[in-house]
Amino acid sequence: MAETGLYIGRFQPFHLGHLEVVKYILGRVGRILIAIGSAQYSHTLENPFTAGERLTMIERALGEAGISPGKYLVVPIPDMNVHKLWVAQVVSQTPEFHVVYSNEPLTVTLFMEAGFKVEAIPFFSREEYSATEIRKRMINRQEWSTLVPRSVAEYIREIKGDTRLRNLSGSDKLPKL
Amino acid sequence: MAETGLYIGRFQPFHLGHLEVVKYILGRVGRILIAIGSAQYSHTLENPFTAGERLTMIERALGEAGISPGKYLVVPIPDMNVHKLWVAQVVSQTPEFHVVYSNEPLTVTLFMEAGFKVEAIPFFSREEYSATEIRKRMINRQEWSTLVPRSVAEYIREIKGDTRLRNLSGSDKLPKL
Amino acid sequence: MAETGLYIGRFQPFHLGHLEVVKYILGRVGRILIAIGSAQYSHTLENPFTAGERLTMIERALGEAGISPGKYLVVPIPDMNVHKLWVAQVVSQTPEFHVVYSNEPLTVTLFMEAGFKVEAIPFFSREEYSATEIRKRMINRQEWSTLVPRSVAEYIREIKGDTRLRNLSGSDKLPKL
Amino acid sequence: MAETGLYIGRFQPFHLGHLEVVKYILGRVGRILIAIGSAQYSHTLENPFTAGERLTMIERALGEAGISPGKYLVVPIPDMNVHKLWVAQVVSQTPEFHVVYSNEPLTVTLFMEAGFKVEAIPFFSREEYSATEIRKRMINRQEWSTLVPRSVAEYIREIKGDTRLRNLSGSDKLPKL
Amino acid sequence: MAETGLYIGRFQPFHLGHLEVVKYILGRVGRILIAIGSAQYSHTLENPFTAGERLTMIERALGEAGISPGKYLVVPIPDMNVHKLWVAQVVSQTPEFHVVYSNEPLTVTLFMEAGFKVEAIPFFSREEYSATEIRKRMINRQEWSTLVPRSVAEYIREIKGDTRLRNLSGSDKLPKL
Amino acid sequence: MAETGLYIGRFQPFHLGHLEVVKYILGRVGRILIAIGSAQYSHTLENPFTAGERLTMIERALGEAGISPGKYLVVPIPDMNVHKLWVAQVVSQTPEFHVVYSNEPLTVTLFMEAGFKVEAIPFFSREEYSATEIRKRMINRQEWSTLVPRSVAEYIREIKGDTRLRNLSGSDKLPKL
Repeated sequence: MAETGLYIGRFQPFHLGHLEVVKYILGRVGRILIAIGSAQYSHTLENPFTAGERLTMIERALGEAGISPGKYLVVPIPDMNVHKLWVAQVVSQTPEFHVVYSNEPLTVTLFMEAGFKVEAIPFFSREEYSATEIRKRMINRQEWSTLVPRSVAEYIREIKGDTRLRNLSGSDKLPKL
Repeated sequence: MAETGLYIGRFQPFHLGHLEVVKYILGRVGRILIAIGSAQYSHTLENPFTAGERLTMIERALGEAGISPGKYLVVPIPDMNVHKLWVAQVVSQTPEFHVVYSNEPLTVTLFMEAGFKVEAIPFFSREEYSATEIRKRMINRQEWSTLVPRSVAEYIREIKGDTRLRNLSGSDKLPKL
Repeated sequence: MAETGLYIGRFQPFHLGHLEVVKYILGRVGRILIAIGSAQYSHTLENPFTAGERLTMIERALGEAGISPGKYLVVPIPDMNVHKLWVAQVVSQTPEFHVVYSNEPLTVTLFMEAGFKVEAIPFFSREEYSATEIRKRMINRQEWSTLVPRSVAEYIREIKGDTRLRNLSGSDKLPKL
Repeated sequence: MAETGLYIGRFQPFHLGHLEVVKYILGRVGRILIAIGSAQYSHTLENPFTAGERLTMIERALGEAGISPGKYLVVPIPDMNVHKLWVAQVVSQTPEFHVVYSNEPLTVTLFMEAGFKVEAIPFFSREEYSATEIRKRMINRQEWSTLVPRSVAEYIREIKGDTRLRNLSGSDKLPKL
Repeated sequence: MAETGLYIGRFQPFHLGHLEVVKYILGRVGRILIAIGSAQYSHTLENPFTAGERLTMIERALGEAGISPGKYLVVPIPDMNVHKLWVAQVVSQTPEFHVVYSNEPLTVTLFMEAGFKVEAIPFFSREEYSATEIRKRMINRQEWSTLVPRSVAEYIREIKGDTRLRNLSGSDKLPKL
Repeated sequence: MAETGLYIGRFQPFHLGHLEVVKYILGRVGRILIAIGSAQYSHTLENPFTAGERLTMIERALGEAGISPGKYLVVPIPDMNVHKLWVAQVVSQTPEFHVVYSNEPLTVTLFMEAGFKVEAIPFFSREEYSATEIRKRMINRQEWSTLVPRSVAEYIREIKGDTRLRNLSGSDKLPKL
């Protein structure tokens, strides 16, 4: 059986930079396991979308990109603030994988200490392919949809995701008691 | 049976602005359900008082204001950092309610997505009717008692609440090892 | 200020025996604090009703019995399986109380070890005033409504509580995969 | 877009009866969402396999049965002992679904109370297509592999899953201190 | 540096059989790491004593037996019901160890799957050196103190531990509402 | 039996200032109980080391300083964000103690409210005996080892603790998706 690569992200939202990474990894392993981190969180400025919504984005984006469902698997993984248990948590919730692709220092540190093979992801994404930038544009009513796959933009509008984020960001404009 | 309105706050402490809101809501519905949010927290600079202490403040303040015990119900509600479950949490811990009064963006967003009727609270409170301002004054030994109902001021002094907050704020003054 | 007595129960459901206890305690102290234990649980055979539903039962039953809202306070208290922390949990979620009324061995042991005054409840309730018996009758479609206050029986029918319990008990009758 | 059906189970392990249900549901809706319940548990007599191992079983079994990866999605869902929050938990972790297939009383009750369309699953599985029976046979070293898809039997042997279960069951045979 | 052996137990209470095991392990390794399992529990019939009380029992018993404090280390370890994370939990809370001594099937299974060296403990303890037996005798007011080290018997009497257990066991003797 | 003093810290890492405090306390009481706070955390910039690693540092440092194992006991204590339960948590996980040594405002406030005797620690440590300073130096590849006991410096190098911290701090240097 070909190798499986693990790719962990929060995907808030899934954007064109993430899609590039998925293609990059699929050029190196037979199958990609996409783990949706911080799966329990939603409705915050950092994590506006639920794991289910992010899962839907990924499925639609990969479908749009012509990547076959047999090439990838998506699994939500709740965060643990007890970091030393997190690798065991990921392993227990996923099928076998052989290499971890990540540039995130904590992920790299924990998987390396646990003896996994970890590889860096080259940085070919343009500056604006950043979920933080996209969320900022949504809040400021700036153009954001060109930074995500077309199907993801449609889905976010369908669930009024940009409006949700704008509402959540209203914290400082209303009288707080 | 007349309508019940839900009013959620942290009430750290319960002040004259909160009392105005209670009266405003009782002018619109037959009964008010006061939910003490972040119920599990206490002894921090943001949340100095326990849920039980806040419950006592509310009972005394409403008694002082001549509001009959049959017109309101107070229920402590622990926070959940898994936001998408929080409306279900509130519903499971409270009697039936028909309308939610809130200006807090997260509360408004979550209850609206869950299909509840949500109404904004007009901003008739003076600038200083803010719990943040009151806690700041307690820490700085400035006059704070004019911003809360008299019975609340007495109770806070009785439990030495202002001293507790001042002690908690001492973090930066002592040698940390 | 008169003494407050704490009475902790699960009230699944609140029945005529519980009402007798409330009256007994109100004959001894100025005010009763009714704590709904296991507040987070519902939809099990042991705990069919939510804390909010149980709170509603208590309010209606005490109203029916002519007990003034100013004489009692009801507070939901989540269970902790870390027993040694439970008294601190109860104390932090409630206004001050002076005596604990209980026959439940764990409650008696924990509050006595914490230095509280604990008093036993005399056993004047008839055999069938038992929540276990009432739940059993609901499941078996036997007469149960004579064992609870009339307003509680009406409320349980209103929310189809007996049907819920019967559905939940269906576990062994359906094919399990 | 065609309808999606939700099918929740523990799949300890995934057996031929489960496979029949998957086929039955796929005869009625366009896509099946298979939720692995009690996802956090493993290494007990009731829940010997991790969510990741169960996910692997399902993928292999459905592959063996010729069901295309585009027709199904598997998502691990941790249990919540706070039942009233569980539907919100499932919804937050999954893409949209339109009908819930279940015979399990708690699942049926909770999803019906939340307003979902729930349909029963006909009982065409033979008596022995029961995960309990299979686990019992594994412990007693009886033939169990005919009750699961061939690929699942192979996988369980590969990870020594039957040995694990036998080891776990040894509790009463060893001196306990 | 000499090898360290890990010995995990609940020690409810620590008895002469446990002491024999400690001596046995110290005959094989340079140092013993005694992990108090289920550390968060107390005040139940199965787990009457707090972790702190059990720690005190172990220190006194080993002192009485003339085992030097430098030869052992005691660490409380809370249970996790997510078994697959438990080995990582133990490792994160303890200094390095080289071999695990256990007859408990779950412990043996989990540490072996994680790649640790696990050794069985020979069964030289008499039948009655069982914590279950000791707790039963405490409840029934039978002689139990001959089954534990003298210093442990004294400590349990000092904290009225046998009375606590007898009180906790009273569940079925009192009217339950 | 002589008095026991409780000393609570995070010890990230244990440094020469901590050692001075241990000696100071041992000059006043017969025995010191060293509680490792925030025991569940590790692999963050604030809490890089596990409780087990910190326990090892303390044992080695006290051994190097010639303090006999019989004079001290080290116990890991997980944090609780529900502060009002924390004293009960500490008490349940430790042997009896008679006085708490602390300058940390939250610790002082909580133990004083619970009725414990609390004493301040004089500030004889030099400015740089600060765990924050040491972690900063590790990250910046500056000299840090003179601020900790020699045995602690050796141990941190042995487990590559300074490299771990440097890796964890890399967050802002890598492309984040």
